[in-house]
Amino acid sequence: MKGTFLLAGGQLGPIARTDTRASVVKRLMALMHRAHAAGARLIVFPELALTTFFPRWYMPDQAEVDAFFETEMPNAAVQPLFDLAAKLGIGFYLGYAEKTVQGGRTRRFNTAILVDTKGRIVGKYRKIHLPGHAEPVPSYPWQHLEKRYFEVGDLGFPVWRTMGGILGMAICNDRRWPETFRVMGLQGVELVMLGYNTPAMNRMGGEAPHLRMVHHTLSIQSGAYQNGTYVCAVAKAGMEEGCLMMGGSAIVSPAGEIMAQAASLEDELILAPIDLDACQFNKTTVFNFAEHRRIEHYALITSRTGAEPPPPGDPDSEI
Amino acid sequence: MKGTFLLAGGQLGPIARTDTRASVVKRLMALMHRAHAAGARLIVFPELALTTFFPRWYMPDQAEVDAFFETEMPNAAVQPLFDLAAKLGIGFYLGYAEKTVQGGRTRRFNTAILVDTKGRIVGKYRKIHLPGHAEPVPSYPWQHLEKRYFEVGDLGFPVWRTMGGILGMAICNDRRWPETFRVMGLQGVELVMLGYNTPAMNRMGGEAPHLRMVHHTLSIQSGAYQNGTYVCAVAKAGMEEGCLMMGGSAIVSPAGEIMAQAASLEDELILAPIDLDACQFNKTTVFNFAEHRRIEHYALITSRTGAEPPPPGDPDSEI
Repeated sequence: MKGTFLLAGGQLGPIARTDTRASVVKRLMALMHRAHAAGARLIVFPELALTTFFPRWYMPDQAEVDAFFETEMPNAAVQPLFDLAAKLGIGFYLGYAEKTVQGGRTRRFNTAILVDTKGRIVGKYRKIHLPGHAEPVPSYPWQHLEKRYFEVGDLGFPVWRTMGGILGMAICNDRRWPETFRVMGLQGVELVMLGYNTPAMNRMGGEAPHLRMVHHTLSIQSGAYQNGTYVCAVAKAGMEEGCLMMGGSAIVSPAGEIMAQAASLEDELILAPIDLDACQFNKTTVFNFAEHRRIEHYALITSRTGAEPPPPGDPDSEI
Repeated sequence: MKGTFLLAGGQLGPIARTDTRASVVKRLMALMHRAHAAGARLIVFPELALTTFFPRWYMPDQAEVDAFFETEMPNAAVQPLFDLAAKLGIGFYLGYAEKTVQGGRTRRFNTAILVDTKGRIVGKYRKIHLPGHAEPVPSYPWQHLEKRYFEVGDLGFPVWRTMGGILGMAICNDRRWPETFRVMGLQGVELVMLGYNTPAMNRMGGEAPHLRMVHHTLSIQSGAYQNGTYVCAVAKAGMEEGCLMMGGSAIVSPAGEIMAQAASLEDELILAPIDLDACQFNKTTVFNFAEHRRIEHYALITSRTGAEPPPPGDPDSEI
């Protein structure tokens, strides 16, 4: 049945800085083989899935940074994954660091691609909500220099009608922003795929560690529910170069419930049966946007970037 | 300390159709007395807190509908609650059906007011996301005719700098829409107060009953977390005129965690210590809007009301 298939999430354990792309692609292929053997037709891999999460280091030498980027996709190291996908008839989402030349200018993005069951790239997304900072902060236990190493994505939040449904992509921190899901929801999205690399602790302190998982699940569950879409979020997990990365890869139903979740911090497959028609319940009732949204009252969302509190009021009325 | 106070939610059990406003106001006053005795400085009451939830009935006679509306606030029946608030020095949020004449035209809204610790109305909100339907549907076990009996609110989502912080209001179904919280978040809101009347079952069927509470908490927790604001959501609960109303009144921290939640379907007080400065952690880090929001990619949110899926694609690429 169209729009009914088994979906896999292919969580990765840590990738060492010295690991070759070839070794990582072997792990991705092993996960793909297992997904296919289980009957899956689509597998979601993590953000920046081909290397260690390099924005944790400040590297003043751009050549050192660029070694983590791909200049072609597929390239020789990744081609075997594309070949296997086409051979098995399984689609995939893959995150990687993209270096490209546009109009004579070198540009770098945190990118994800969607590859269909014939091994063809059918969609590309470039991360819009880059977290972290642009300048190194020596007091942090690790850096998060995505704002230094990447440009903000320039492709918006498109969706693709492929593989029997309407599919969208996002990356990591995008999931915390309801705008991400809403822009795709307004295009009828039925499955949002998302890879992430999330440390298990806040590098700035000031936050109980258990909240990291609370916020992850809260974000993907609310995004799914409020748009009537499946969400598949897949981590790179485990102790990677001294930084513990949260796992918790999960598939969420359009009702907002977790259908499957990873239990380890290693390479792990999660699976859930998808019926894209199930998105219609929320989309046609409580979240029938045409019936209920009131865009005339939402103007600030697109006209104002930062928060602007009102001016101080009458102190007489304060508690 | 400014912005540090004890907050109360005053959940109501069912209100019968024959109950007088005077009898309901006595119950509200009893909750207010208990809140004050506990040390609270602010208490949140439910949506449409003065009568039974009348949109469950189709009433072709407008006079019958209008009997559930208030034409003045305060009026004689409610004045004792205002007087008690001023005497005790406790603020409150109260939902009621508002009938008013504007420019010679009679208008009806689902309204909430904020009353400060001196018994003065300092804010008014009129519900924007009206759920339900405008025409009766005989097959439903009960009606939900908010779209028939109320106009869409015309006051936007303002916030008020009062009572030591930046306070906002919403009503019931508003909480399911991230736009509600975001518009207030962009104004620096630190506490969103919200009353609700939510049946424990979906009148349309097709949804597991436990999801009602899942969706309630998911909506208020994500709204709190994603904007770094406290949320206090207060129910009218219990078996009301043959319709079981979900309880679950809750106070949520700006980290998105439930701090207090009602355990009954009766009149019940919930309490939580509020420190509005705690909102700053999320507001200045992961949800520093000025740093991270990318409004150039959000255009659809305010330019498109309903969902518009892309045209059908290449069937060759489908799973």
